[in-house]
Amino acid sequence: MEYTAYKQHKEQHFAAPDFIRDIVIGMSDGLTVPFALAAGLSGAVSGTNVVVIAGLAEIAAGSIAMGLGGYLAARTDQEHYANELERERREVSEVPDKEKEEVADVLRSWGLGDTDVNSAVEAISKDPEKWVDFMMKHELGLEEPEPKRARNSSLTIGLSYIIGGLIPLSPYIFIHNAFSALLISVIATLVALFIFGYIKGRFTGSKPFKSAWQTTLVGGLAAGIAFLVAKWIS
Amino acid sequence: MEYTAYKQHKEQHFAAPDFIRDIVIGMSDGLTVPFALAAGLSGAVSGTNVVVIAGLAEIAAGSIAMGLGGYLAARTDQEHYANELERERREVSEVPDKEKEEVADVLRSWGLGDTDVNSAVEAISKDPEKWVDFMMKHELGLEEPEPKRARNSSLTIGLSYIIGGLIPLSPYIFIHNAFSALLISVIATLVALFIFGYIKGRFTGSKPFKSAWQTTLVGGLAAGIAFLVAKWIS
Repeated sequence: MEYTAYKQHKEQHFAAPDFIRDIVIGMSDGLTVPFALAAGLSGAVSGTNVVVIAGLAEIAAGSIAMGLGGYLAARTDQEHYANELERERREVSEVPDKEKEEVADVLRSWGLGDTDVNSAVEAISKDPEKWVDFMMKHELGLEEPEPKRARNSSLTIGLSYIIGGLIPLSPYIFIHNAFSALLISVIATLVALFIFGYIKGRFTGSKPFKSAWQTTLVGGLAAGIAFLVAKWIS
Repeated sequence: MEYTAYKQHKEQHFAAPDFIRDIVIGMSDGLTVPFALAAGLSGAVSGTNVVVIAGLAEIAAGSIAMGLGGYLAARTDQEHYANELERERREVSEVPDKEKEEVADVLRSWGLGDTDVNSAVEAISKDPEKWVDFMMKHELGLEEPEPKRARNSSLTIGLSYIIGGLIPLSPYIFIHNAFSALLISVIATLVALFIFGYIKGRFTGSKPFKSAWQTTLVGGLAAGIAFLVAKWIS
């Protein structure tokens, strides 16, 4: 559920194809929260009917929050980028000297001496598009967002959340004994979390087995604590 | 200016103090999913007891997934950064010519001519720390993560998720008529979502009222669909 905050952060290090990356993000989050909710409820209510209703409601809510929420956040980024681009273009044509000084500041910060700075500033500011591009990247640190990508990405993440959430939930749909359903759900989901953690680790360039254990730990801990909370208040 | 330029850019999307930013992120997510789950369940089960149990289990699960998950992701980022830094340092001392060529490639992409490139490369590569720093930022596009910030941030986001989640849930705790509780929960949460959307908009530099409406829409839609899903299968 940490989409908006950590998504951009995550993206930097994800060397995988975007599509696979989105599936892994949506599915590992979908595995975690519905899993924990179902496990928690199964310890507090009798019968699996309520677990299935709550689980499906959560999957609906979570996938919309993640998919639609992520999509709108991406659109806001696009608007923000477009506004800043507009402003930089205006400034480059209206106050070129001030903008050149800003380019010079950036270059100086990299250890370039005055002579180098001056001639590099001239080179960069010769082409207004490159100049604006330089300012966007190095003064403001903004990368151009891809409009189509945002839509596809949100859709993939939302759908993967649904599929991920159905893994811990399906035992409760087909098995009517709450304890048996819980047992199978826990085993199936921990295995799935481990596999997705491993895949995530491969794509992030970190150690796959470490990532697998961590992903399993987060899901398992969330489920365990949800179980205790539900048991305690019921 | 050098590091301020990069700091500014990082905060460009979110000009607020980190602490407030984390509160808004955790709280607006906490408002959305537990809200939708409680609304969904209230249409499908009689009595508010199950709603409260499921809601608190979800809050426990969501805050752990968001807090602990975010923390581990940040730690992975730190390790990744440290590994890449180590590698760049090694490359700079072992294959300096290749690394100089990489600096030159970056500079050329900004429109600098050969003379400028050569003397800028010399300037940058004079100071190994600056050189490595340049490669990390401009070749690999990696910013140095802040270790302490990751921990505090995860804690703030997790706690804000809990507080945010208690807003839609508290009517069900204190009012035992499911319909009255739902009504008060919907009104209170939509107002809270609107306020948080507004605050989020102010900090992201986008239009506050637009952000307020969007945040309310995501929460309201998630709750509406969760309600329909739960009603349909119960």
